Amino acid sequence: MSPARRVTITDIARLAGVSPGAVSFALNGRPGVSAETRARILEVAAQHDWLPSSTARALAGARAGVIGFAVNRPARTLGAEAFFTDLMAGVQSALAPHRLALQTVLVPSIDDEIATYRRWRSSHQVDGVVVIDPRDDDPRMPVLRDLGLPAVIIGSVRSEPGHPATLQVDDRRVAHTLFAHLAGLGHRRIAYVSGPAEFQHTRLRSEALSGLSAQGIAGAVIPTDSSPAAASAALGRLLADGASPSAVVFDSDVMAIAGLRAAQERRIAVPTELSIASFDDSTVAALVHPSITAMTRDTFGLGADAANFLIDQIAAPAPLPDRTGSAPVLTVRESTARAR
Amino acid sequence: MSPARRVTITDIARLAGVSPGAVSFALNGRPGVSAETRARILEVAAQHDWLPSSTARALAGARAGVIGFAVNRPARTLGAEAFFTDLMAGVQSALAPHRLALQTVLVPSIDDEIATYRRWRSSHQVDGVVVIDPRDDDPRMPVLRDLGLPAVIIGSVRSEPGHPATLQVDDRRVAHTLFAHLAGLGHRRIAYVSGPAEFQHTRLRSEALSGLSAQGIAGAVIPTDSSPAAASAALGRLLADGASPSAVVFDSDVMAIAGLRAAQERRIAVPTELSIASFDDSTVAALVHPSITAMTRDTFGLGADAANFLIDQIAAPAPLPDRTGSAPVLTVRESTARAR
Repeated sequence: MSPARRVTITDIARLAGVSPGAVSFALNGRPGVSAETRARILEVAAQHDWLPSSTARALAGARAGVIGFAVNRPARTLGAEAFFTDLMAGVQSALAPHRLALQTVLVPSIDDEIATYRRWRSSHQVDGVVVIDPRDDDPRMPVLRDLGLPAVIIGSVRSEPGHPATLQVDDRRVAHTLFAHLAGLGHRRIAYVSGPAEFQHTRLRSEALSGLSAQGIAGAVIPTDSSPAAASAALGRLLADGASPSAVVFDSDVMAIAGLRAAQERRIAVPTELSIASFDDSTVAALVHPSITAMTRDTFGLGADAANFLIDQIAAPAPLPDRTGSAPVLTVRESTARAR
Repeated sequence: MSPARRVTITDIARLAGVSPGAVSFALNGRPGVSAETRARILEVAAQHDWLPSSTARALAGARAGVIGFAVNRPARTLGAEAFFTDLMAGVQSALAPHRLALQTVLVPSIDDEIATYRRWRSSHQVDGVVVIDPRDDDPRMPVLRDLGLPAVIIGSVRSEPGHPATLQVDDRRVAHTLFAHLAGLGHRRIAYVSGPAEFQHTRLRSEALSGLSAQGIAGAVIPTDSSPAAASAALGRLLADGASPSAVVFDSDVMAIAGLRAAQERRIAVPTELSIASFDDSTVAALVHPSITAMTRDTFGLGADAANFLIDQIAAPAPLPDRTGSAPVLTVRESTARAR
């Protein structure tokens, strides 16, 4: 069963008295050969221990050559999220030199995400996974640990011992930087239009805002489903309030652009009457008018770092310690100004 | 070698005198077992014709359960392209109910894309591929045909006999609709800031514009690399021209938003002094101010259609005929108006 002794498709074709193309069709389950011919080919292949090259690699102790990414996001909104696409592109850029492929699958829930990890593990379909949006008491972590499936988490909280390693992005500091910028401009009423409350980064950002109350800053958090429509509606409600904020921070660039438009439709001047900022930056955030102040993260680089960390983790004899991802920096643009 | 007779990891563990976990580690090439133990496990596995379940499926005539998508785009600009991400999300939405995964790999050139198809085919790694950006005399088509790799092309030109089937998107009609809208508003000098000239859709859109010369419309095509910077620079050059256009159409939403900003920076009022439109629509195109007139394609639905077409193609005994994708519709927004 050494690689040198493996039978080839040509061998099987000769033994079964058919063309190599017919063998390929039969072994790959493709139409083009009769049921009898297919049965004969499969029998010959089985008798001679034929293995497709991917299995031969697995038996030789090599890898599937595939990294998995189970995406628990609504498919319809995926395209609008620059963070997600930049991250995937960065992951792929790091995999390409290693001839590794990225396998992604959309999952409707965290339970389906966990089931996907189990299936990938049992079928040897992926060598490791990248995991995003960690939660407090995340049910995925003990499962990944028990499966022994190499994984890298992108998140802000230190990994528990024995759990998959985290590429640290320190959302606490990111949030503090952006809210401190607004406080420094004299804003005393600041709102944060967030995504779903169960994400760790929502909690960390909310905590950073409420931490400013000691400095006399009134913070309000409006959780949404991250959609532009919800962001626009949240801004409308905030502006209708008697004590409306003078600065609003949105979780993503698309939400901020929706908020900007909602302000413009109400003839609220940005930034003279209202400052707007975003936790995610993007190409478009820099192109809209006024351009949007944002925390600029090298999301592409983050994806590449995560992939390289995972490649190291797969090769390592034991779980690796957490690493620190590159820190986002504040990019001040036209959408923020001194409070009136 | 029938599935009922296959040895399991538990069988191998018993025969080798180790734990099932050790067998899993050894067969999957993971650390956690000694070299001797690994060798003994691999020997037992080989003696008893152990096959991982994915190979067992292949021998039984089933599929890899994976669809391939080789992406020949610069990784750094991928995230900004809503078309691409929406398409992938749509593909995945159609694959999910079938428990099929999407495998994507970034390729730096069309030659590497072709090499990827050959590798995927020989390793039985994917059951079929989705192919975008068809070209005239496209070298990928005869290769896919010869490999017998099921494929669906998303494009505007009818497939040649024996070549992979096309999901028709009719860019000729799309281009005519958008240019006719501008002509109907009285524009007589129209520019098209395009992507790379080698794409079929660039040619079809350019031809649609030059076809309007019989109606007294002067058209200009400015090819770019599709980047926002190039789109912005192209608009700057057009406006510096003595006979500058009164309407400019961009290939993508991001290019149009870059052009809009370039106009605003020059204090050119959109749409009263200059109309701007885009061949791609997006969430953000509808949110910027002024919002951008665009051809609205259900790109998500197109991806789902392509995936379903490919699933049918994989199951079919012979190549299927071309299908027609849903037609984009013109969405008139704030960025286009009557020519002055």
